[in-house]
Amino acid sequence: MDAAEFRKRGKEMVDYIADYLEKIDKRQVFPDVEPGYLRPLIPDCAPQNPESFEDVFKDIEKIIMPGVTHWHSPYFFAYFPAASSFPALLADMLSGGIGCMGFSWAASPACTELETVMLDWLGKMINLPEEFLAGNSGQGGGVIQGSASEATLMSLLAARTKAVRQVQSEKPELTEADIMGRLVAYASDQFCATLGTTSCCSFDKLLELGPICNKENIWMHVDAAYAGSAFICPEFRHLLNGVEFADSFNFNPHKWLLVNFDCSAMWVKKRSDLTGAFKLEPLYLQHHHQESGLITDYRHWQIPLGRRFRSLKLWFVLRMYGVKGLQEHIRKHVRLSHLFEHLVLQDERFEICAEVILGLVCFRLKGSNELNEALLKIINEAKKIHLVPCHLQDKFVLRFAVCSRTVESTHIKFAWQHISQLATDLLKTWEQKHQQQ
Amino acid sequence: MDAAEFRKRGKEMVDYIADYLEKIDKRQVFPDVEPGYLRPLIPDCAPQNPESFEDVFKDIEKIIMPGVTHWHSPYFFAYFPAASSFPALLADMLSGGIGCMGFSWAASPACTELETVMLDWLGKMINLPEEFLAGNSGQGGGVIQGSASEATLMSLLAARTKAVRQVQSEKPELTEADIMGRLVAYASDQFCATLGTTSCCSFDKLLELGPICNKENIWMHVDAAYAGSAFICPEFRHLLNGVEFADSFNFNPHKWLLVNFDCSAMWVKKRSDLTGAFKLEPLYLQHHHQESGLITDYRHWQIPLGRRFRSLKLWFVLRMYGVKGLQEHIRKHVRLSHLFEHLVLQDERFEICAEVILGLVCFRLKGSNELNEALLKIINEAKKIHLVPCHLQDKFVLRFAVCSRTVESTHIKFAWQHISQLATDLLKTWEQKHQQQ
Repeated sequence: MDAAEFRKRGKEMVDYIADYLEKIDKRQVFPDVEPGYLRPLIPDCAPQNPESFEDVFKDIEKIIMPGVTHWHSPYFFAYFPAASSFPALLADMLSGGIGCMGFSWAASPACTELETVMLDWLGKMINLPEEFLAGNSGQGGGVIQGSASEATLMSLLAARTKAVRQVQSEKPELTEADIMGRLVAYASDQFCATLGTTSCCSFDKLLELGPICNKENIWMHVDAAYAGSAFICPEFRHLLNGVEFADSFNFNPHKWLLVNFDCSAMWVKKRSDLTGAFKLEPLYLQHHHQESGLITDYRHWQIPLGRRFRSLKLWFVLRMYGVKGLQEHIRKHVRLSHLFEHLVLQDERFEICAEVILGLVCFRLKGSNELNEALLKIINEAKKIHLVPCHLQDKFVLRFAVCSRTVESTHIKFAWQHISQLATDLLKTWEQKHQQQ
Repeated sequence: MDAAEFRKRGKEMVDYIADYLEKIDKRQVFPDVEPGYLRPLIPDCAPQNPESFEDVFKDIEKIIMPGVTHWHSPYFFAYFPAASSFPALLADMLSGGIGCMGFSWAASPACTELETVMLDWLGKMINLPEEFLAGNSGQGGGVIQGSASEATLMSLLAARTKAVRQVQSEKPELTEADIMGRLVAYASDQFCATLGTTSCCSFDKLLELGPICNKENIWMHVDAAYAGSAFICPEFRHLLNGVEFADSFNFNPHKWLLVNFDCSAMWVKKRSDLTGAFKLEPLYLQHHHQESGLITDYRHWQIPLGRRFRSLKLWFVLRMYGVKGLQEHIRKHVRLSHLFEHLVLQDERFEICAEVILGLVCFRLKGSNELNEALLKIINEAKKIHLVPCHLQDKFVLRFAVCSRTVESTHIKFAWQHISQLATDLLKTWEQKHQQQ
C-alpha cells in the first residue's frame, strides 16, 4: 500500500470509525460469541501473497465486531470508563504517522518536551503542589506511563532502591539481598494509598497516612487512576488533599479525561529518585546535551525503552475541550450517577452499598448474595446493558459505572427500568422456588 | 468535536500524514532545536475554553515538527528501525476507534482471540517450535507486550517465582526472602541470551547455552528484538536454531516487520509459568468462562492491566503484505547494508568492525577513538543523515542501521559519499592539527 492508497483507505477508515461511534447504541453491548469463536473463522497461517484492503476491511464486521464488547456504548456500565474522544483519535493518528521513539531527548526532542509541559498543564489543572511540576527549574515532574500498574511498579522500585542505598550508606557490611529481605511495604488490599478504589470508589485518608509516612521516611505513592480526572473540578479537589505528603502520584486520563488509552499520568517530587534507580546509558543512547543536566531522557522513568508520542493526545484534548469542556464531561457523569442512585433509592427492594461520590454507584437487592448473583446474571445475559460486580464486606454488589462519553439521562433511565423489571421477574420466580422448597 | 467534524478533520489528518511520509526526505532528518525549545512556544497552562481544530492543527508544523527527529526519513540510519507501514496505521486507527480494553477474555473477546491466533501465525512464520504455539490445545502461546524490556521483565519474574516455589517445596523452612537472596540470574552484558545485539547485531550461541540451561534447570529467555523479524526468511532462520531449548522467546515486529510501535511479540512454552506468577482475580474481573480453563485472560501475562487491541496491526500487516512482501522488505534492508559494507570496504581509510549479518554495519576510520568521535560529530552536525555510535571492545564505532521502509540504494550511496567527503575534510584538518602539535 502506497501513500496514494492510504489517502483513500484512511478516509474510508475515518468514516467507518465515525459510523461505528455514531451508531454504537444500535449494537448489542456485549457479544454473543463463545470462547474459541475466532480461530475457525480465519486461516491457520498468514497468507504468502498480499491480500487487498477490501478483503481485510470486510472481515472487520464479519470476524472482529461479533466479538467486541462495546466499551463506548451508552449501555456500557461495566468496570470503569475507557476514555475516548475525537481529538484524541486524531492525535493518535498523528502520533502513528510521525512514528518516532521518545526514549531520549535526542531521539525526538518534541516528544519529550511536549510531554513534560503537558504534565505540567495537567498538574496545574488538578492543582497539584508545585513540587510535582517540572517548570523551568523544578526537581519534580511528570511522565506518561502506560498504566497505573506501571506507575505503581516504578514507585515501588524507586522506593526500594532509595531505601537500599540509604541502609547501605549506614551499614556498608550488609548486602543488597540482606537489606531487601528486611524491607517492608505497607499496603492495604488496594495496595497503596488509593483515591477512588475500583470496587466502590472509596478514598484513603491521605491527611492521616501522609504525615506518618513523612515522619517515618516511608515513600508514599498515591493512586487515583479513575478519580483523578475529577480533581479538575474545584468541587472535587478536596478529595486530593494530602497529596502534598506524597512522593509520587498517578492518575489515568485514559480512564475519565477523554484521552484514549494509553495515557497514565505520573508525577514525582524528585525526578532523581526515578532516574537514580533506573539510569541506563549505553553509548548509542547518549547525546551531548546530557552533560548539561538540563534535559529529560524519559527512558530512565519507565520500564520500556521505546515510547510513543503520547502527549499529543493530551495536547489535542486539553486544547479542543478546554478545561471547561472537560469539567462539563466530569460533571455530567457525576450528575448521571446521582440520577441512578436516586432511582435506586426510590425502590425499596434495593439498597445503595457505598457513598456515591463520583461516577460509580454500588447497589444490590436487599437479600442474599445468591439473589444478587442471579440478578447480575440475568442482566448480563439479556445483553441490553453490561455491568460487573464487586465484593464489599462479603456482600455481592452490582457496580453501575457511568462510562460512555455520549451517555445521557435517557440511557440511565432505560438501564434502571430494565434492571427493575428484571428484578421483578427474578423475585417472582425466586419466591416461587423458595415456596416450593 | 462531533462525528461530523471528525469525518472532516480525520480526512485532513490522513492527508497530512500521507504528505508527511511522502515528502519526508525533504525534511532535515535531525532537528535544529536546543533543549527547552518548546516550553516558551506554548502557554504555561491549558486553555479554559475550547480552541478550534485549525488552531491546534497549524501548531503541528509550527511547534512540533521543528523538534521531531524523522525516524522514517530514508536518511535516518540511527539506533534500529522503528517499523511503520500504511496497513499498520489503518489498523491502529481502528484500534483507537473500537477503544476496548483487553485485560480479560470477556472485556473484549475479539481482542484476546485475534492476539492468540496472530501470535500463532507469527510463530509459524519464523518456524518457532510447536511447543511455543497455543493452537487448540497447546500449553504454550504468545502475547503482545509493549517492549522487549517488558518481555524480559516478565520472564525474569516468572522464572523467579518458579524457582522460589520449587525451593520452597523442597525446603519449606526457608522464607521467600531467604531464597531470593540466593537466587542467581546468569547474564551477559546484554542481559539475557540475545540474537542480534543492539551494538553490533551479534548472536549468542543458543546451541551451546540451551543444553546447559536445560540440564541445570535454568529458565532461558531469548531476546531477538531486532533480528527476530529476519527469521521469516528461510536463509536467516538458522540464526534462531537452539530456541527449542528456551522457555521464553521475544522479538519486536515494531522494529523491523512494518508493524508500528508498540508490538513486542513474546512466546512461552508453558502459559502457566506466567499466569502462575501473576494471577489477579478480583471479582469485577471474573467471568463465568474462566471456569472452563479454555480461555486466555491476558492480564495475567503482563505488568499493565489495561491493553489496547494491538493484534489488529499484525493482522492488517501480515495480510496486506503477505509473507512474501515482508520477506522482500527484510531482504531489501539486508541487501542495502551489504551495499554500504561494500562501499566502506573499497575505501582503505575505513574498516568494518563486526560481521554484517542483517541490516546493521559497524564501521570506523582506521585510527583513534577521538578521530572517530570527531567524524560522527561532523556527520550529525551536518544533519544530512543521522547515525549513533557504539563501543566494541573499547573502540568507538559508528553504527549504520538501515531503517526506513522507503530507503533505496540511492540513499545509501548518498550517505556513503557524504560520510566519505566529511572524512576527507576531517582527515585534512586532523593531520594539520597533529603536524602543528
